[in-house]
Amino acid sequence: MSGRVSEVSVATNGQGMIDVSGLVAAEVANASSDDGLCTVFIRHTSASLVVQENADPSAQDDLERWLERLVPEGDPLYQHTAEGPDDMPAHIKAALTATSLSIPVRAGKLMLGTWQGIFLWEHRRGHNTRRLIIHVL
Amino acid sequence: MSGRVSEVSVATNGQGMIDVSGLVAAEVANASSDDGLCTVFIRHTSASLVVQENADPSAQDDLERWLERLVPEGDPLYQHTAEGPDDMPAHIKAALTATSLSIPVRAGKLMLGTWQGIFLWEHRRGHNTRRLIIHVL
Amino acid sequence: MSGRVSEVSVATNGQGMIDVSGLVAAEVANASSDDGLCTVFIRHTSASLVVQENADPSAQDDLERWLERLVPEGDPLYQHTAEGPDDMPAHIKAALTATSLSIPVRAGKLMLGTWQGIFLWEHRRGHNTRRLIIHVL
Repeated sequence: MSGRVSEVSVATNGQGMIDVSGLVAAEVANASSDDGLCTVFIRHTSASLVVQENADPSAQDDLERWLERLVPEGDPLYQHTAEGPDDMPAHIKAALTATSLSIPVRAGKLMLGTWQGIFLWEHRRGHNTRRLIIHVL
Repeated sequence: MSGRVSEVSVATNGQGMIDVSGLVAAEVANASSDDGLCTVFIRHTSASLVVQENADPSAQDDLERWLERLVPEGDPLYQHTAEGPDDMPAHIKAALTATSLSIPVRAGKLMLGTWQGIFLWEHRRGHNTRRLIIHVL
Repeated sequence: MSGRVSEVSVATNGQGMIDVSGLVAAEVANASSDDGLCTVFIRHTSASLVVQENADPSAQDDLERWLERLVPEGDPLYQHTAEGPDDMPAHIKAALTATSLSIPVRAGKLMLGTWQGIFLWEHRRGHNTRRLIIHVL
């Protein structure tokens, strides 16, 4: 076995960024890793991952509204509309951001910068349960 | 040696997404990994990687056309035109998507979600041979 | 301990791409790795990473100007303006590119393609010191 793999669920409620840094840090601590590498993977194509500023909520809000404006609902280009008006924009937003992130670990702690948080970025409306895989080496 | 590294070639024929999930899964199976991590890396800057929906081809088609509209050929901004009108848009499209992807492995299988496929995204016209590196830990 | 973790600083002077391939390659060589995996992580949310063409500087220049046009300063959408007019565009540009990159290693060398360089992409004006974490397995 190379590393420890765990799966966690995160409940979302509409579009937006959810800080999962604490959840990932807890898995790293459970793995009692010394130095190593933590990889986070999201098992969905209409939600994604991003490392962003965790201090000022207005930065997250601007990111959300900027991406919404770049990839609006109701674009006549979309053919894939059977799963709802928010589905195809969600796939595009996910393609433009990350499905996997790898963060080095030192002395059992994620080596994030001072202002960095790990976020699950929900791109769909409504309530969803999103699954993350966390691999700690 | 930390993990198994292999290189595979994929032939492309114009712009579009090619599902390489089976090819990556075969390398993971060859590595007879138990739990671990699979990293896919593309050795090019005018083609990229993406994890996207593998069920409805219209989603892939919308992704292709949306990105084509965002980064069209013939934009007067481009100075780098010596390698053809499709080259600079291809570099930009690659920069907006992924060059490497890391996917956790459990019991020798990629932990992809139900609707997730790993795609090589070709951004250039014509026939190309694209090389992927697959590292399995 | 799983792999070797090191931290390096890079001085930047305004927006643009800085080739850090040699710096990363030196860390890989120091780790005297045989086959393995190198992960580069940037500890900031207003600068990012990208693998791009290292041959023709006009390609880097076009990337810079294209992204600048897509995410201009002074957009009335921005609420997060307290840290300067270049800060919110920098966060968006970072979200659209990469915070971590994983590159397979063979015989102690990064398996980059012929025309690939690893770049730190500075999205802010002025002088900054950016920290990269390099994990070599």
